[in-house]
Amino acid sequence: MSYVPFKELRPAYGFDEVAIVPGEVTVNPEMTSTEMRIRDTVFDIPIMAAAMDAIVSPASAILMDQMGGLGVLNLEGLYTRYDDPHSMLEEVLSASQQEVTGLLQDVYSPSVQSHLVGQRVQEIKASGSCCAVSVTPNNAKALSPVAVEAGADILFVQSTVTTARHTSRSYRGLQLDELCQQVGIPVVVGNCVSYGVALALMETGIDGVLVGVGPGAACTTREVVGVGVPQVSATLECAAARQEYFNRTGRYVPIITDGGLRTGGDVCKAVASGADGVMLGTPFAQAEEAPGRGFNWGMANAHPNLPRGTRIKVGTKGTLNQILFGPTSVTNGTQNLVGALKVGMGMCGAMNVQEMQQAEMVVAPSIKTEGKVFQFASN
Amino acid sequence: MSYVPFKELRPAYGFDEVAIVPGEVTVNPEMTSTEMRIRDTVFDIPIMAAAMDAIVSPASAILMDQMGGLGVLNLEGLYTRYDDPHSMLEEVLSASQQEVTGLLQDVYSPSVQSHLVGQRVQEIKASGSCCAVSVTPNNAKALSPVAVEAGADILFVQSTVTTARHTSRSYRGLQLDELCQQVGIPVVVGNCVSYGVALALMETGIDGVLVGVGPGAACTTREVVGVGVPQVSATLECAAARQEYFNRTGRYVPIITDGGLRTGGDVCKAVASGADGVMLGTPFAQAEEAPGRGFNWGMANAHPNLPRGTRIKVGTKGTLNQILFGPTSVTNGTQNLVGALKVGMGMCGAMNVQEMQQAEMVVAPSIKTEGKVFQFASN
Amino acid sequence: MSYVPFKELRPAYGFDEVAIVPGEVTVNPEMTSTEMRIRDTVFDIPIMAAAMDAIVSPASAILMDQMGGLGVLNLEGLYTRYDDPHSMLEEVLSASQQEVTGLLQDVYSPSVQSHLVGQRVQEIKASGSCCAVSVTPNNAKALSPVAVEAGADILFVQSTVTTARHTSRSYRGLQLDELCQQVGIPVVVGNCVSYGVALALMETGIDGVLVGVGPGAACTTREVVGVGVPQVSATLECAAARQEYFNRTGRYVPIITDGGLRTGGDVCKAVASGADGVMLGTPFAQAEEAPGRGFNWGMANAHPNLPRGTRIKVGTKGTLNQILFGPTSVTNGTQNLVGALKVGMGMCGAMNVQEMQQAEMVVAPSIKTEGKVFQFASN
Amino acid sequence: MSYVPFKELRPAYGFDEVAIVPGEVTVNPEMTSTEMRIRDTVFDIPIMAAAMDAIVSPASAILMDQMGGLGVLNLEGLYTRYDDPHSMLEEVLSASQQEVTGLLQDVYSPSVQSHLVGQRVQEIKASGSCCAVSVTPNNAKALSPVAVEAGADILFVQSTVTTARHTSRSYRGLQLDELCQQVGIPVVVGNCVSYGVALALMETGIDGVLVGVGPGAACTTREVVGVGVPQVSATLECAAARQEYFNRTGRYVPIITDGGLRTGGDVCKAVASGADGVMLGTPFAQAEEAPGRGFNWGMANAHPNLPRGTRIKVGTKGTLNQILFGPTSVTNGTQNLVGALKVGMGMCGAMNVQEMQQAEMVVAPSIKTEGKVFQFASN
Repeated sequence: MSYVPFKELRPAYGFDEVAIVPGEVTVNPEMTSTEMRIRDTVFDIPIMAAAMDAIVSPASAILMDQMGGLGVLNLEGLYTRYDDPHSMLEEVLSASQQEVTGLLQDVYSPSVQSHLVGQRVQEIKASGSCCAVSVTPNNAKALSPVAVEAGADILFVQSTVTTARHTSRSYRGLQLDELCQQVGIPVVVGNCVSYGVALALMETGIDGVLVGVGPGAACTTREVVGVGVPQVSATLECAAARQEYFNRTGRYVPIITDGGLRTGGDVCKAVASGADGVMLGTPFAQAEEAPGRGFNWGMANAHPNLPRGTRIKVGTKGTLNQILFGPTSVTNGTQNLVGALKVGMGMCGAMNVQEMQQAEMVVAPSIKTEGKVFQFASN
Repeated sequence: MSYVPFKELRPAYGFDEVAIVPGEVTVNPEMTSTEMRIRDTVFDIPIMAAAMDAIVSPASAILMDQMGGLGVLNLEGLYTRYDDPHSMLEEVLSASQQEVTGLLQDVYSPSVQSHLVGQRVQEIKASGSCCAVSVTPNNAKALSPVAVEAGADILFVQSTVTTARHTSRSYRGLQLDELCQQVGIPVVVGNCVSYGVALALMETGIDGVLVGVGPGAACTTREVVGVGVPQVSATLECAAARQEYFNRTGRYVPIITDGGLRTGGDVCKAVASGADGVMLGTPFAQAEEAPGRGFNWGMANAHPNLPRGTRIKVGTKGTLNQILFGPTSVTNGTQNLVGALKVGMGMCGAMNVQEMQQAEMVVAPSIKTEGKVFQFASN
Repeated sequence: MSYVPFKELRPAYGFDEVAIVPGEVTVNPEMTSTEMRIRDTVFDIPIMAAAMDAIVSPASAILMDQMGGLGVLNLEGLYTRYDDPHSMLEEVLSASQQEVTGLLQDVYSPSVQSHLVGQRVQEIKASGSCCAVSVTPNNAKALSPVAVEAGADILFVQSTVTTARHTSRSYRGLQLDELCQQVGIPVVVGNCVSYGVALALMETGIDGVLVGVGPGAACTTREVVGVGVPQVSATLECAAARQEYFNRTGRYVPIITDGGLRTGGDVCKAVASGADGVMLGTPFAQAEEAPGRGFNWGMANAHPNLPRGTRIKVGTKGTLNQILFGPTSVTNGTQNLVGALKVGMGMCGAMNVQEMQQAEMVVAPSIKTEGKVFQFASN
Repeated sequence: MSYVPFKELRPAYGFDEVAIVPGEVTVNPEMTSTEMRIRDTVFDIPIMAAAMDAIVSPASAILMDQMGGLGVLNLEGLYTRYDDPHSMLEEVLSASQQEVTGLLQDVYSPSVQSHLVGQRVQEIKASGSCCAVSVTPNNAKALSPVAVEAGADILFVQSTVTTARHTSRSYRGLQLDELCQQVGIPVVVGNCVSYGVALALMETGIDGVLVGVGPGAACTTREVVGVGVPQVSATLECAAARQEYFNRTGRYVPIITDGGLRTGGDVCKAVASGADGVMLGTPFAQAEEAPGRGFNWGMANAHPNLPRGTRIKVGTKGTLNQILFGPTSVTNGTQNLVGALKVGMGMCGAMNVQEMQQAEMVVAPSIKTEGKVFQFASN
């Protein structure tokens, strides 16, 4: 019996379902450039550390800058709620897995201190580093001026799902165009996963779009509310929006794939999907210098009524320098991320990130090294 | 060699294979309405507890009403076969896994007592609660009048597979239009999974359609007889029938996705697939107040010759209130189902259930939090 | 770069990837007929026991006949190589898993004894049962006359892959049309998996086609030589050939899905894919009466140079009667196969096997009861 | 909202996702020819052993020749870096899994010795065997003349990803046409995975193309840099290039599927995908005669900054003769690879490799014997 379908479902893909096809020409990895640009600021490497308390403290933000990337400080985390955030970190780290969600709900309940916002920004600026800070839409108007005043260079406005238009009974939705004019510094906004939202966000005048809802290892949004789009498809959609917006206006707004990346292969695939940069959580939580000392958690874990995700043990794998540039003695792709990107670009004949965005991809069944080794070992 | 195919197979999807795409606008969860309507009765939340003995006793039906939802009492279960059903529950709960199928076949063999049907309905009505009861098509004509007489408000007619036309040698198939006229109260019928059957059922004058064959955790219909359609596709089909029927007649017959839902994400996906409401088994069997005290089983388990499914241990996870409204300290989506629905609706910019039905969905590879956590923990 | 593809790959499906959609009407299972016809012989149930030594001895062939089905005796197995096959069975059953492939190669090396062929047929006929025997194409001309002479009723000609035309240097390929004329009794031939071969086989005048290459639990043809087609797709193709041949000639040649079926659900799906009957291995090897006493193996296991498959432990699950007709206390679909077929037919509104062949199917993600139970148990 | 997609992803398949459809006619395996030709050299079997130190020493190259195949000696491995390579092998074999990547980085750091290149070639030629050697593009111009001078018969030029045009700052890219003229002997080049690259490589005048990026068990290129195409799709693309090139020029350039093959089934599928030959790693590392004595590793494991893959334990399974020709007592397809190919060809009615390339294939869900056996064993 034929009928009008209620709706059509299109397929969507994540990193594990795709592979990059090598190019028709190849170039030496040493000849490739991995530069990423946000408005007028150029970064040597297109890699950001996520605004999570276990990953970016003022100290690790400075370290990321020295490596050529960018660490984003969460202005609504422990560092701006407590004069001494380290004792709070200590509590979270020593809690049992059973009690940790309740504890996170507790330690994130005190208010953000305005004076601490300024203080943390100044700690980063004092080192001469680029300072990027992250706020939620709700608090953007209150916290941004303090951060800008203190010298912040880039403002991230982030929530699980961000659109250009939010309806609320209790407050007037954040107007991104007004915010951009107010702060003056570049504004990067997210997270979103679709063409329409990415385009609408770009039209407000912002300087970057974060791509990704639900994919991170410390996030269970897809379990809890069913919402989320795998990163390859999300990035492809937002990249199409960037091209459309660029063709129409001549302004190039970079998109940054945020969440769910674990290996150098994932970084390569994000770029091949159209990303100008990537934001990583777990891989940086595994750095020896990470404040989370082998654990990671997200703000959604601390939601009083609907915690999504949990503190996860990620382990400590090496120095930040090893994770970004090697040398490495592990072979699973979790170290030397920049080296992997340059090798991948070389295999695709891409001299820079924009050329790598043109690489061909296939939908391919997942290959797991561990599985294969085990398979032979157990024979 | 080209030829006429014997038949074509279309793809079908379940909850784990899809994800919801966030909307172009977002709204604050507190502004969303989750109301569900069956004929003239409006429920605050679109969530029903399944007519299974381990889930809905008269007491838990009253509790569900107080929470704004609906618990459906099985009129052919232990409560109407035994004056003292609790000692029978006790036997089922204390049986070993090996002996339980045989025991279920035994305890469900005595006949349903007419006087107990009236008595259970009155127990529920005495509290002032809405009383919904469930019968099979075979017994609908005999048991319905007793229930209606005692004050039942909504009649569910349920079997594994229900159609508008059943052929039998031993009895004349149930005529749903006659039944509707006879009982007067709203009649909800199921289960079905396809456009044609849903449309034919609506045309008999019923007030709701239950969607789902074979998906529940306590049901093995798909193993045993190969019949079943994953819930997302089944709901999409029946929603198309509801729209077609509404366009033609102006009468809106709600569809309720029944079975296979475990998390708030599943509830959101059912609604995004077109459901007006959902009926849950396992999640309510996990409530502290559930008569099954951490176990669940279905009527098909007790079939004398072809038992399908089995008693499963589901554990006790929290109070009914926590499961429906939180607060929760678990992060896997099994608690605060209503909160999850409201957050999901907010992310999709849906002010009510009907707007949430318009949310876009993608076919997406499954993401399992547990798997990912384990993966890192074991590195 | 566009180019002419080297070849196109079409998708193929097995039992685990599909599900049956319930019908627009339903019928009472007791009203359904499961009859299967091979030329003029009508069987009450469309279920055959595979010609494997662990499954069909003369005694179990008689038992299958009494149940309304058909057990096929392998004329090239232990029963026709040894006067006392039971001591050989004993050896195979008591061998360790490590030594069993070598042992199978040994015990199957003595020649088939012509006089034992006749003797085994007569043992079956003496009980008044229908006697079906199986030979390979190589030995069909030599062994068939002996079996026919002794009273065999149906001849199966089986090899891993059978076509209407085989090229060999050492012997002239078997001419099926000549064989049919020579033996007089109905000839069932297989195995094949495609439209073209099934059609060509039917055109030789045979009376039944066996469908299936590589799907059985005791067979590893797909591992070892990469050849095989999942059973749902194979059955759909051969059913299309049957329809084409019937439309052209008016002669209806039944097709029998052989191998890879484990549950009542699989039986229903085979019929819904177009099968007139099914041939099972493992489920009958699990009968208390099976000569393999909880083990199963195939002839390909004993190939001197390229053994495919191995002896597998299948366990003993119940009497043959329980496996076919119940009652049963297991809920995973491995018992009461006929009851399951009748219930499935009822759900699809099918009064007989040919109507069940018209049931709609979907491609659906696999649902595993065990997995789900475990999932809850381990929470 | 409709828009121009950023890019389209086409599906790609590996060995586990496909199966071969038996042919319309069958032939006796003994009548099939498995010959493979590279320029004027004809090999009895189309099977090569990969240029990996754990697989091909001068001694095992001679053994492969005697079996009718070809073992390729890596001219940049331990055999040409050390006068006594066996003590180095010993070190690698006795290292713990934790220290082995570091150790590999060490033992592969000394330079290749020109005099050892000549010496190893002469060791092979002294036996009368065909001598094939492998070099990377970087070292092709330096090492090839030495090998040719010493009597090498076939030159393999291999890197993870090879194209006809490579851009480098530090050296002029290798010109394959010049190399071919310089060396005179047949040149086989790879690895590549796409139509365009395969065609461009053939146009340089080379005599064979190696197909495969990232599929091998000892290789994690797909994890580390995200680049790789599953072998069935890669082979189909390169076969299309071979046909196009042959149609245009009349010159037939064989393609060799290299990496990721484990069983006879995989060999059959590679040929059915269009391969003229295959190159295997793991299966030959499992030979009793293999220098790796049950372990395997690749050159990419020893990369100083970005090691990809690792030493894996593959175990020892039988003699090289058993692995190639049987007889075998294992039934999982890892032994009697040539027998399997001939049986598979027989099932497809293919008299030679080129006819087997025409076999039909389907996309089919994977069947795992181990899984199935376990499933029954654990019931």
